[in-house]
Amino acid sequence: MQPALYLARSSMFEPAIGRAKVFAITETLGEDSVSWDEEEIAIHGYSELSTSNCEARPIAVVRPKTTEDVAFIAKICTAFKIPMIPFAGGSSVEGNFVAPYSGLTIDFSDMKRIVSFHPDDMDVVVQPGVNWVDLNKLLKNSGLFLPLDPSPTALIGGMVATNCSGTNAVRYGTMKDWVVNVTVVLADGNVIKTRHRPRKTSAGYNLTSLFTGSEGTLGMITEITLKLATIPEKQSVAVATFPSIREAAATASKIMRTGIQIAALEMMDETQMMVINKNGGTGGRLWEEKPTLLFKFSGTQRAIEEDVERVRTISSQHSGENFEFAKSEEEMNSLWAARKESLWAMLAARPEGTQIWSTDVAVPLSRMAEIIDLSKKESGQLGLFSSVLGHVGDGNFHQAVMYNPNDPEQKQSVRDCVLAMVHRAVEMEGTVSGEHGIGLGKKECLLEELGPETVGVMRTLKRSLDPHCLLNPGKIFD
Amino acid sequence: MQPALYLARSSMFEPAIGRAKVFAITETLGEDSVSWDEEEIAIHGYSELSTSNCEARPIAVVRPKTTEDVAFIAKICTAFKIPMIPFAGGSSVEGNFVAPYSGLTIDFSDMKRIVSFHPDDMDVVVQPGVNWVDLNKLLKNSGLFLPLDPSPTALIGGMVATNCSGTNAVRYGTMKDWVVNVTVVLADGNVIKTRHRPRKTSAGYNLTSLFTGSEGTLGMITEITLKLATIPEKQSVAVATFPSIREAAATASKIMRTGIQIAALEMMDETQMMVINKNGGTGGRLWEEKPTLLFKFSGTQRAIEEDVERVRTISSQHSGENFEFAKSEEEMNSLWAARKESLWAMLAARPEGTQIWSTDVAVPLSRMAEIIDLSKKESGQLGLFSSVLGHVGDGNFHQAVMYNPNDPEQKQSVRDCVLAMVHRAVEMEGTVSGEHGIGLGKKECLLEELGPETVGVMRTLKRSLDPHCLLNPGKIFD
Repeated sequence: MQPALYLARSSMFEPAIGRAKVFAITETLGEDSVSWDEEEIAIHGYSELSTSNCEARPIAVVRPKTTEDVAFIAKICTAFKIPMIPFAGGSSVEGNFVAPYSGLTIDFSDMKRIVSFHPDDMDVVVQPGVNWVDLNKLLKNSGLFLPLDPSPTALIGGMVATNCSGTNAVRYGTMKDWVVNVTVVLADGNVIKTRHRPRKTSAGYNLTSLFTGSEGTLGMITEITLKLATIPEKQSVAVATFPSIREAAATASKIMRTGIQIAALEMMDETQMMVINKNGGTGGRLWEEKPTLLFKFSGTQRAIEEDVERVRTISSQHSGENFEFAKSEEEMNSLWAARKESLWAMLAARPEGTQIWSTDVAVPLSRMAEIIDLSKKESGQLGLFSSVLGHVGDGNFHQAVMYNPNDPEQKQSVRDCVLAMVHRAVEMEGTVSGEHGIGLGKKECLLEELGPETVGVMRTLKRSLDPHCLLNPGKIFD
Repeated sequence: MQPALYLARSSMFEPAIGRAKVFAITETLGEDSVSWDEEEIAIHGYSELSTSNCEARPIAVVRPKTTEDVAFIAKICTAFKIPMIPFAGGSSVEGNFVAPYSGLTIDFSDMKRIVSFHPDDMDVVVQPGVNWVDLNKLLKNSGLFLPLDPSPTALIGGMVATNCSGTNAVRYGTMKDWVVNVTVVLADGNVIKTRHRPRKTSAGYNLTSLFTGSEGTLGMITEITLKLATIPEKQSVAVATFPSIREAAATASKIMRTGIQIAALEMMDETQMMVINKNGGTGGRLWEEKPTLLFKFSGTQRAIEEDVERVRTISSQHSGENFEFAKSEEEMNSLWAARKESLWAMLAARPEGTQIWSTDVAVPLSRMAEIIDLSKKESGQLGLFSSVLGHVGDGNFHQAVMYNPNDPEQKQSVRDCVLAMVHRAVEMEGTVSGEHGIGLGKKECLLEELGPETVGVMRTLKRSLDPHCLLNPGKIFD
């Protein structure tokens, strides 16, 4: 079957029939569970944070409360060929939850129960609508936490679906490393659980990892067991500036090679620092407008002291200046605030009517400096205002480019700029998406990264589990 | 399609036709590449280390040298419906490489090139026939290593195929955490590469993790990029004895909860210590015959000193005695030797004519002590001699039971004993295989662990990639 023919199955969906059948869902799940409100529908089918939007909208939004509700919805949708679009926090940026073939949005925000917590096993079982910040607040007294760090508004279901990460990944890995099992409702409404709760297994296919990062295209995740880490005894933060991106990247690379177990290793370019200053700095403080590394340390007091000294030495070997180490929790928060507020600073700094195109790639560590340098030069040449933020310990960086969406020339420029960055990442043996998934926006990029044979295997797997192409159709690949 | 009908496709294989076609392979790959030698065939179709053997044997053994060779073999085998059984180090124990439907064994031991090494990216690209001990010797001067620790005879291809681990898993995770990408020859001879070399990605389905641990049933792995870790500045070892398994397990659990980053955390029961003593001890030293914990520490000198003190305190809070900390590299090796030699000690200790049934399960951390206690009691009641070895930081343990394979009653007893351990692990929300895979031996156990729906999804995926059931048929599930 050709890709086009496969996808056509979703586009044959008849909204009128869909509407009638969604009424049937209302009858079973209750009036409150389905919304036909236009504003609600608009919020679920469009994202201001994303440049990958589309014209079509879902016909309605349903809010299940249990796995059984979701299974019932899937059965109805499969019987009447209604596309199903899972929705969690809505913070993804690659058009991961828009509805290009219309269909029914399944919003998991009402499924926010903590099902069970096993402190002695260091795991917790949650529904997909739980927010990770809330979860960590609840867990705090146990001394355990989920060590991911995506958008504060992200919900666990979406975090699993996009295999998210954030600043902690250099120390703790990405979402896939913390998922013990998932309960999944398949397209036909059957329910499976990928695993029990062992911390380690080699029994059968790794279905947990297959569903993690599959963006709702293989099944809908309705329950997740998460491994938890111990909250470090202490944390601290340091900061240093560098004469160039290259020196900052070389410092990051040396830290990784030395095996220092850094808790986070973030780079912000001079533009990003300038934007923070323009926005009033952090806590009244203004920053040097130079390539800057932020280091987070964790462990015992002694271990941190030792790590800080080693990092200070490596930094100065690479012309690092203004090395500053937080001596109190207040100082730590103040230093880290520069990183935390970077996105908001960019959003606040943009002129009226402009949008931000924010995307990310990841490359092998040794190519980091080069790709950032080239990408910055290119956006500069195109006359676009852009800043760079890098999770440099992972070879992962984000470029945020400002543009006026009503100016076709600028729109094209920003698109060219992003595509050039993606091509370059692929040439450097990297990936077109480090932590945002593929969604609607990067399908062509994925094909460029992996080639038609590898994407073809993904399609074969998808077809075997979702023969009518009803689960989040039009995402990842066509 | 019913499972039986699907598998029947493999059993329809005609050895006579197969032989003729394998001659065609010889013509292309060269005389040396195919062996018809009976002894060779016997070695490849049977394992003394395993209790999951079968009567059938492969028709021949082929040794490819390149991915193209493997693709050519797959095309011939698919055209003439010849089962393909990938073979690496032959150290697996669940019958992972036997040939219940006969077919052609593809031995990867001639594919042992290190394709490329990228020290600055902290990764290495290898063929599947590379031995991990050899690899680590070659990498040593770079300060990097692959932090897995399975059988010293294991080859990378088999390690990936069974998602192996070993004593380092508590600190470094399992094989899946170190595989960046795999090149795979599919059943039809098509070749895919799952990913480039980014250290982090959220682009498309995690095919790398799907092939890792799939035991050659979805494709044949012909090249692997491995992430590498920094060799710790220093290592050390300590040992302590405990009045009971429960106290030892409680100590392990407390260490994990405290977040001490232990490099290895191994338990050996009093029987295992006795066996080591019977075998002459280690380096002339005799051990206390009590439940014993071995701790491995790694990091800087200061960090190790700090960790040792914390572990000593926790041990003494749980009635730990004879806490001994290695003060030199020699002492370290001598203490660790007890763990290293445990399997050989068991093999040496077994009376003439007996065999060892060695298997493993993993459970949530809090159930560790209970399952070991119960399993030991049960094997004792059955009159069997058995010892326990646990990777207790992961909730994973091995029981080795001695029995006379010619005594049907004993054979049944050991089988009952192993099945009881597996049932118990499942009841405790654990897994039936922590690090050995499923192979031929634990198919029923996997079904018990995950249920027919979840195993059914595995079968659906397998069928989609291998419709004629030619890749290692009869393994993981029927």
